[in-house]
Amino acid sequence: MKHVLVIYYSRTGHTQEMANAIAQGAQLAGAQADCRSVYDVDIAQLVNYDAIILGSPSYYGSMAADVKKFLDSTISLHGKLRGKVGGAFCSSARVSGGNETTLLSILHAFLVHGMILTGGTPTYPYGPVAIHAPNDDATREECLAYGRMIAELAAKLSP
Amino acid sequence: MKHVLVIYYSRTGHTQEMANAIAQGAQLAGAQADCRSVYDVDIAQLVNYDAIILGSPSYYGSMAADVKKFLDSTISLHGKLRGKVGGAFCSSARVSGGNETTLLSILHAFLVHGMILTGGTPTYPYGPVAIHAPNDDATREECLAYGRMIAELAAKLSP
Amino acid sequence: MKHVLVIYYSRTGHTQEMANAIAQGAQLAGAQADCRSVYDVDIAQLVNYDAIILGSPSYYGSMAADVKKFLDSTISLHGKLRGKVGGAFCSSARVSGGNETTLLSILHAFLVHGMILTGGTPTYPYGPVAIHAPNDDATREECLAYGRMIAELAAKLSP
Amino acid sequence: MKHVLVIYYSRTGHTQEMANAIAQGAQLAGAQADCRSVYDVDIAQLVNYDAIILGSPSYYGSMAADVKKFLDSTISLHGKLRGKVGGAFCSSARVSGGNETTLLSILHAFLVHGMILTGGTPTYPYGPVAIHAPNDDATREECLAYGRMIAELAAKLSP
Repeated sequence: MKHVLVIYYSRTGHTQEMANAIAQGAQLAGAQADCRSVYDVDIAQLVNYDAIILGSPSYYGSMAADVKKFLDSTISLHGKLRGKVGGAFCSSARVSGGNETTLLSILHAFLVHGMILTGGTPTYPYGPVAIHAPNDDATREECLAYGRMIAELAAKLSP
Repeated sequence: MKHVLVIYYSRTGHTQEMANAIAQGAQLAGAQADCRSVYDVDIAQLVNYDAIILGSPSYYGSMAADVKKFLDSTISLHGKLRGKVGGAFCSSARVSGGNETTLLSILHAFLVHGMILTGGTPTYPYGPVAIHAPNDDATREECLAYGRMIAELAAKLSP
Repeated sequence: MKHVLVIYYSRTGHTQEMANAIAQGAQLAGAQADCRSVYDVDIAQLVNYDAIILGSPSYYGSMAADVKKFLDSTISLHGKLRGKVGGAFCSSARVSGGNETTLLSILHAFLVHGMILTGGTPTYPYGPVAIHAPNDDATREECLAYGRMIAELAAKLSP
Repeated sequence: MKHVLVIYYSRTGHTQEMANAIAQGAQLAGAQADCRSVYDVDIAQLVNYDAIILGSPSYYGSMAADVKKFLDSTISLHGKLRGKVGGAFCSSARVSGGNETTLLSILHAFLVHGMILTGGTPTYPYGPVAIHAPNDDATREECLAYGRMIAELAAKLSP
């Protein structure tokens, strides 16, 4: 059984809702999925996961400062995340106000860690994006599909 | 009077409609604005413009090949576009399917040319994006506003 | 045995040299590796490969127009590359003149295809970059290591 | 007289050295230039500057968390930086280990603020990058030239 960690930073609850749906999607693919606020992640535990999916609202075109603080702190286990699967998701107030660059700021960090990425769904190739509230069915379906894809990739990599 | 050139590549007509609205916005700011297909641009004429705004549909996360071909051909006047204003716009089939990375692929090229960029409207900080057809009023207003901003910046730079 | 295709666009021979070293690295990992100019790729054959690694010089901050033309033409088999491994490499005249954005312009396209990416070596996390000529030993080692990583990932994904 | 603010985050002193050279370049162009650590910036004072140049080491492919924290805090004066000139610089341990994406993470934020950007020098079109220590003459010259360019652009925009 694969272990997937979904980490979110959420002030309005939107990013957290996305995180829950992504974790649920991973479970549908047979993985055990934990869902944690960025403040509740024990860095030392990251090595126990097969996949790490990180979500942030879009603040000035990249991840929120507290999400970056978390990522910068993973330097303590640099090299130990190599080969794990990474994913990103983003909530945004606007259709094209920096959500892709926010997703990519997370994916770049995972590439520096030597992690494995996958193109997302046809609608959201860099990862799911919710404009305003993510409580519509379409966004929820996208999050479920993405969580499933990440978990299936983790399973493929170490069956 | 400032001279603004809006260049587009359009297969469905959507990017061309955006180009027309952007050119009209530039005219509202007192500029003379020409609107040309990427196939109809005389590279040698580029030096006669104060601002160049380039639009493309989003193909695989960056500008269409024919737009890149045009940009690569501007090597013949490398250094001569320095200090001119640059802008980008994009039409896309999907909300977050590569439209920001497409805009940025154009803006990066303009930075390599030493050109001047401006943040766009609050809704589209990297440049206007039209999802599907741009014939709705909101997208048209965004394009008008962007054209106006670019023309006003060009006027400020060489009054 | 995994099949890896290394595709390059090279005017000075530098990108081709990198391609050869990357293909050799893939072979060291037990893969069969083909090395082709972007003009000699039969699009229909792409589906027969487990991994596709695409290299370009950095022209105005993204891949050369002829490389984009190749990528745009892969629309004819859209959906059929999903799950394959993708990689990128770049030759550049300058240390920081657009080589990362060039690599990323290729990686974005592979994400839109639904392909799998991996962080590169510690030195080149987005993919190997050669500044000027790649004939020094360090660059060659980086290319070998990258080819090996891509081939090993392809093998892991479908053992 | 134009006022330029150079802001840096520096743990090893490299980014600070770059900041000093950039500020000196701005002074050579006739501007008054202040140089401040990201911890010593009074957000409310930002509106008094004509140009803001922000530098960070490259941490996991984007600006350091403390730099992002500063940028996120500028939300309190959102809209009031529109039309000011922005610039970015970066120190990095490696030639191509995320320095361009770090510069761009800063430039994206400035675009969201509606600020004006300029392509840098031919060597560093997105902004100066120092690999390892920036105390060599070439890097220093690049920083001087960039500071001068930013100050000259600010002067052009409001003579």
